Amino acid sequence: MRNLNDQKSTNELEFWFELGSNYSYLTLHRIEALLGGTQIQLSWRPFLLGAIFKEQGWATSPFVLQKAKGDYVKRDMERQAERYGLPWTWPSKFPRSTLLPMRVAILGQHTEWIGPFCRAVSRRNFVDDCEVDSTDEIHRILERLELPADEILAEAQSNAIKNRLRVQTAEAKKKGIFGAPTFVVNGELFWGDDRLEDAVEWCLDSSV
Amino acid sequence: MRNLNDQKSTNELEFWFELGSNYSYLTLHRIEALLGGTQIQLSWRPFLLGAIFKEQGWATSPFVLQKAKGDYVKRDMERQAERYGLPWTWPSKFPRSTLLPMRVAILGQHTEWIGPFCRAVSRRNFVDDCEVDSTDEIHRILERLELPADEILAEAQSNAIKNRLRVQTAEAKKKGIFGAPTFVVNGELFWGDDRLEDAVEWCLDSSV
Repeated sequence: MRNLNDQKSTNELEFWFELGSNYSYLTLHRIEALLGGTQIQLSWRPFLLGAIFKEQGWATSPFVLQKAKGDYVKRDMERQAERYGLPWTWPSKFPRSTLLPMRVAILGQHTEWIGPFCRAVSRRNFVDDCEVDSTDEIHRILERLELPADEILAEAQSNAIKNRLRVQTAEAKKKGIFGAPTFVVNGELFWGDDRLEDAVEWCLDSSV
Repeated sequence: MRNLNDQKSTNELEFWFELGSNYSYLTLHRIEALLGGTQIQLSWRPFLLGAIFKEQGWATSPFVLQKAKGDYVKRDMERQAERYGLPWTWPSKFPRSTLLPMRVAILGQHTEWIGPFCRAVSRRNFVDDCEVDSTDEIHRILERLELPADEILAEAQSNAIKNRLRVQTAEAKKKGIFGAPTFVVNGELFWGDDRLEDAVEWCLDSSV
């Protein structure tokens, strides 16, 4: 199953996600446990899914634009969350604005707090049903993680970080990403939380 | 995982499919083997996916309308066909018109030739890369299956059958179906070939 067109094989699994994406919530809460014990190197890649939707001509999520699909996804999320033993509420506002926490996420994508931070934000959105795009909210989350909240928030709102998120979103688009989560392994795309196991298998096969 | 709102539990698995749908091709070639040995009753439910797309405002498949998704699906189909050990070619024309074979399918949906017929049609489309919406082609397929081709073709083109396919498509829409294949078990929807195993599990759990 190896793609012979790839330059070289690595054991890197890129996890492209968006904090406002409900299926990304599922992956955020299970990917690290799933990769535990493997030699796979997890690369966190936050990107702005809404910007990609906009280029497609969509003002919002397809789960809002297509009522039947939206209704299905609501039920599917209940089943998948139950399968994984995760708490879950369809938020009263969907999709929620996540620009500030996404900027914090790209600032921290190579740090050890990226996972705990993203899980905390997505739980606020998808479990507590709260807004997450305010400095107050993100400050509280960072403090609870015992991180230097003031410094992180200042840097997250710098032009350098704003631009880094735009560049990473453009990179997602260039890779052919159209939804979240998407996993990329040696140039192979796997779309959707339910394809995470396939991506892991591909990574293990490719890096032998 | 049972849905308590359902009227009653059965061991019926409804398989809603479209002969022009590439992911339906995968399911057509594996569903009967997967259900073998279970007590699950398979109900074949052909419906016109294009009519549902049209009501959504789409003139063709989202795999054509959204280039990035279409590119992904082409690669995904190669991987999934390899996983299942199925021959596969992305057809030079997609999606192909399938109205006549769909009418034959609804005529035969309760017969024992429904599976062999649908597999033969979808192989012509997705393996041999041939048109399938002609009386000549369908006549040949029916004859090869040792079926009364003339009689079946005459009945398939009757107003009664044309109408039955319209009614069944309206029923699909009423159930909230927006893509193919979709599996329905005791009112629960499972969308996509890769959710077939979940649908089977649900059916086995519900019918205890």
